[in-house]
Amino acid sequence: MSSTEQFKQAVGVSTVLAQIAGHASHTVFSIPGPIEVSDEVLFANAHPSVSHVSPDFIPVFGDCIRMMRQPFLIAGSGTLGWDQVASNLVEPGENALVLHSGYFGDSFADCLETYGANVDQLKAEIGAAVSQEAVADALKKKKYKLLTFTHVDTSTAVLSDAKAIVETVRRVSPETLVALDGVCSVASEEIHMDQWDVDVIIAASQKGLGTPPGLSILVASTRAIKVFNSRKSRPTSYYSSWKKWLPIMKAYESGKPSYFATPPVNLVYAFHASLLAITKSAPSLAERYELHREASRRIKTAAQDLGLKQLPLDPAFAATGMTALWYPDGLGAGDILPRLAKKGIIAAGGLHVETKDKYFRIGHMGITAVEKTRGDVDTVIKALKETLAEAAAEK
Amino acid sequence: MSSTEQFKQAVGVSTVLAQIAGHASHTVFSIPGPIEVSDEVLFANAHPSVSHVSPDFIPVFGDCIRMMRQPFLIAGSGTLGWDQVASNLVEPGENALVLHSGYFGDSFADCLETYGANVDQLKAEIGAAVSQEAVADALKKKKYKLLTFTHVDTSTAVLSDAKAIVETVRRVSPETLVALDGVCSVASEEIHMDQWDVDVIIAASQKGLGTPPGLSILVASTRAIKVFNSRKSRPTSYYSSWKKWLPIMKAYESGKPSYFATPPVNLVYAFHASLLAITKSAPSLAERYELHREASRRIKTAAQDLGLKQLPLDPAFAATGMTALWYPDGLGAGDILPRLAKKGIIAAGGLHVETKDKYFRIGHMGITAVEKTRGDVDTVIKALKETLAEAAAEK
Repeated sequence: MSSTEQFKQAVGVSTVLAQIAGHASHTVFSIPGPIEVSDEVLFANAHPSVSHVSPDFIPVFGDCIRMMRQPFLIAGSGTLGWDQVASNLVEPGENALVLHSGYFGDSFADCLETYGANVDQLKAEIGAAVSQEAVADALKKKKYKLLTFTHVDTSTAVLSDAKAIVETVRRVSPETLVALDGVCSVASEEIHMDQWDVDVIIAASQKGLGTPPGLSILVASTRAIKVFNSRKSRPTSYYSSWKKWLPIMKAYESGKPSYFATPPVNLVYAFHASLLAITKSAPSLAERYELHREASRRIKTAAQDLGLKQLPLDPAFAATGMTALWYPDGLGAGDILPRLAKKGIIAAGGLHVETKDKYFRIGHMGITAVEKTRGDVDTVIKALKETLAEAAAEK
Repeated sequence: MSSTEQFKQAVGVSTVLAQIAGHASHTVFSIPGPIEVSDEVLFANAHPSVSHVSPDFIPVFGDCIRMMRQPFLIAGSGTLGWDQVASNLVEPGENALVLHSGYFGDSFADCLETYGANVDQLKAEIGAAVSQEAVADALKKKKYKLLTFTHVDTSTAVLSDAKAIVETVRRVSPETLVALDGVCSVASEEIHMDQWDVDVIIAASQKGLGTPPGLSILVASTRAIKVFNSRKSRPTSYYSSWKKWLPIMKAYESGKPSYFATPPVNLVYAFHASLLAITKSAPSLAERYELHREASRRIKTAAQDLGLKQLPLDPAFAATGMTALWYPDGLGAGDILPRLAKKGIIAAGGLHVETKDKYFRIGHMGITAVEKTRGDVDTVIKALKETLAEAAAEK
């Protein structure tokens, strides 16, 4: 029996879970990350101290590595994934192309430049993703070692067409590596890494993966690892260096401990609990995607019925795991967000620098979308209706 | 009432804590980090999702920042502290001097070189710290931007004399910055940052600070921040860049949210719970240091009585929060560690590359040393005695 199982058995997990779940003040936590986390996951996060090299921990970490298909799992926020890409896959002086569909494009570009890349950005207008024509043109003009895009930009809720982007790259500049920033998309938007031929997927624990924040997750293709292995210069980061981390991940995957830096042990237990739910339990992953689509459709339809307009200019650009809505004419953050909060809905304000005071964001990833018995989506829709009616009545 | 308080009140914290504490399989977790974590801290780690910009979280994060005196609190392991120092305080081509008293000296040097520093190492023999004469000589020969030392090297349990090192630096090369790697010393060894004039203290959550792993903690002096602010080149890391993090820490300290990368929210709640215990509750910090000294004396005396020799060559070099012991003649890891484990004591093997199979390590930081009612120290001593008797009898 694993230590987690022993632990659960000993403490009577169902009672504790019921108590964790039963606290009175709990609101529907509906921002686009960190998202709601299941009680099982929270409970795993309260696991007593375990050594990072102990026989109890090794299979748990190993399982996570296997379930995520050989990722890098490192203590850090999602941002650390950019550092991993910038410091391992690009050498100083090489060219990188960043597709910009919101706030996070600028930041990724900044990160790449920090490590010496020459960065060009292709910027879409607010609410749109960069067109395939623009991508193809840019790739024809200059040789790029790397192209990056934000799959769902949390600042705009714009979804980029990952499959089409990789197709364009493989057609025009087949050797260019493609990095998908999936921090706000993994486990809520469909991604087929092998089939689409994506080289890097960057994720973080606190969004679709349903775990508290603090774990940077990155999966690299064979092509990416090969490019890494043929670097001429050493990786330009120490903490993010794959030279350090590759042997660690391989060791734990094969059931042996190894040390470079202490992993976030408790969070790995929590991540393990969430991955088990996502990959090994009902509903299946395919069903989960469908449940995310259903939640998204319901919230977006309700918003439309209320006369609210989405930031994404076209349904093709709209994320599944979150919704970004312009405030109605004459209303602002102060009219909407506090009222939603009073009704137990924590939504997020705007983030895109140019328009952040003009819109708000609702997250509907993970258990909020998947566990229908929670009724989160209904609660959000009801609160949104009441809020708009009240705000309009008071103006 | 804070959300934590509401949460605790609602779920009946004492019952849950009793259940978390009551699990049957729990052993005395006696490695030099991660260390035992109190049930209060574990419970805080299971806090439901909270937004990093929410009015509930801001004062908690702000409190941590105030209690740690304006640190950088970043999702990451202790290792990330090295990256912070190397990428913010040293510019490419500048000189750094690393005092080596074990495994972690080599790694810190490697990190500094990654970011372009010219590194010299002063290596002490195994079991000793570098002498002040050697430090003074090195500082006279070359101008160093930075000197680093490992306060307690977890691989050898060697304690360096922090006060004397800074005195030597200020006497011979007053402008050289002094970075103390306190990952294995903060909160278990006495440190007086201002009085001793230390420029940087690097720490991590999972040792003396009694919190699960995953939080990099770094405190910088006014001198260090001034040197940082007068950099000619940009910081050479993105995720570790103080240019990004300084405004964030200042914002939360003053009660406002700000975003660069998502903080590890649950872990910050856990860290908050532990800092409250360490800095605002009985026993006082001074009493805690004395309790650590007492636990250390007891374990080291018991080991001596059993004929076990410490790695540190002189009591002056011996850490307070951990003990490293050579295996007795004719015995090895296989004779000692599994027997200790059977008696519920999880100790750690060796780590120093040259001698790792010849010694083992016992941690006695945090609640293991401070909460005497737990009886951890007695349990460790008893198990050690029985183990040695059994091992000797079977040989």
